[in-house]
Amino acid sequence: MASERTIGRLSLYRRALLRLQVEERRPFVYSHELAGLTAVSAAQVRRDLMSIGYSGSPNRGYDIGELVRSIAEQLDDPSGQGMAVVGVGNLGRAIINYVSRQRPRLAVGAAFDKDPDKAGRVIQGCRVYSLERMPDVVREQRIQVGLISVPAGAAQDAADRLVAAGVSGILNFAPASVHVPAHVFSEDLDLITTLEKVAYFARVGKGSER
Amino acid sequence: MASERTIGRLSLYRRALLRLQVEERRPFVYSHELAGLTAVSAAQVRRDLMSIGYSGSPNRGYDIGELVRSIAEQLDDPSGQGMAVVGVGNLGRAIINYVSRQRPRLAVGAAFDKDPDKAGRVIQGCRVYSLERMPDVVREQRIQVGLISVPAGAAQDAADRLVAAGVSGILNFAPASVHVPAHVFSEDLDLITTLEKVAYFARVGKGSER
Repeated sequence: MASERTIGRLSLYRRALLRLQVEERRPFVYSHELAGLTAVSAAQVRRDLMSIGYSGSPNRGYDIGELVRSIAEQLDDPSGQGMAVVGVGNLGRAIINYVSRQRPRLAVGAAFDKDPDKAGRVIQGCRVYSLERMPDVVREQRIQVGLISVPAGAAQDAADRLVAAGVSGILNFAPASVHVPAHVFSEDLDLITTLEKVAYFARVGKGSER
Repeated sequence: MASERTIGRLSLYRRALLRLQVEERRPFVYSHELAGLTAVSAAQVRRDLMSIGYSGSPNRGYDIGELVRSIAEQLDDPSGQGMAVVGVGNLGRAIINYVSRQRPRLAVGAAFDKDPDKAGRVIQGCRVYSLERMPDVVREQRIQVGLISVPAGAAQDAADRLVAAGVSGILNFAPASVHVPAHVFSEDLDLITTLEKVAYFARVGKGSER
């Protein structure tokens, strides 16, 4: 199985490749170009692509269409993966909208909110259910990934409910760490902490410790 | 100067401390509690707090109010730091709104958009300017940090304009890496790449390589 870093880089390569394909209508790319677009070394690009059984031609580079398909075989579930959002405030709505536009294949199939007034509504094309419906909806829609966009104080409860319902991956946007069992893959994407870091180094300057 | 990791952890501690203070009205906290809330070891918590000149009492732990002030002295600019967003689509609006609610001190003071219909409008309490106004507005409002929330194809141009206007920190939400000069601190916060990673490990399970 590939490591977290390799998976992250394959996702970055695909992002760059899709851009070259759609915006520049390019059929081929050299490893050094892909390296420049993704801030990865050319040698690393070649190693990663070799690891998914792919090597470019010295003359033309890599066939972009084939490479996108090879990466998709590695990253994507051919039968699709269900995803759900917990918490449909402003951030939750923006996430549903953004993900659906950027990656139609990863579109969010269901949303959950504790507000009874939101249950039953359709937000950004996505139906909102009460938290109590989560076990049923997760099972029926075969949802594997949960995105948490609730306030800090409700984040752990949202994670507990998702795990109990059978979700095996969590992306947590709430400004609070959540604890999950060892079999669940969980990642925090914390806007405020990252922003405070950028603000700090913008002020004091980049030191030698970077 | 503190390292990137230390700054990130101090920001996490503050987040947890503010929660304890506001939601639980707690006056004191032990290092092991703070460790549990932030997924950091208790020894690391004590080292980090020692590094900002702070040690807790063995009986009562750390004074939360004092600790929040000490971290603020380290992280925050006492005169405030100007921030601006480039790109006020759905994601840009959500970012302006979210940051203002979570950290009023870091509120976004200006926004820029290439759409002439948006210039002059006020979105989420934040005035929108044309891209051409950026050099003046950045200077007048002493903006140090730029947040990029434009489509992939416009990300590098947004970064170039921010750097030319004098910004020294960039938080890039666009799904494309940007290149900045060595004196500028830049960080990508890439939702789609992170989501693809979570989706992958949700599907194949967490391996021993983590």
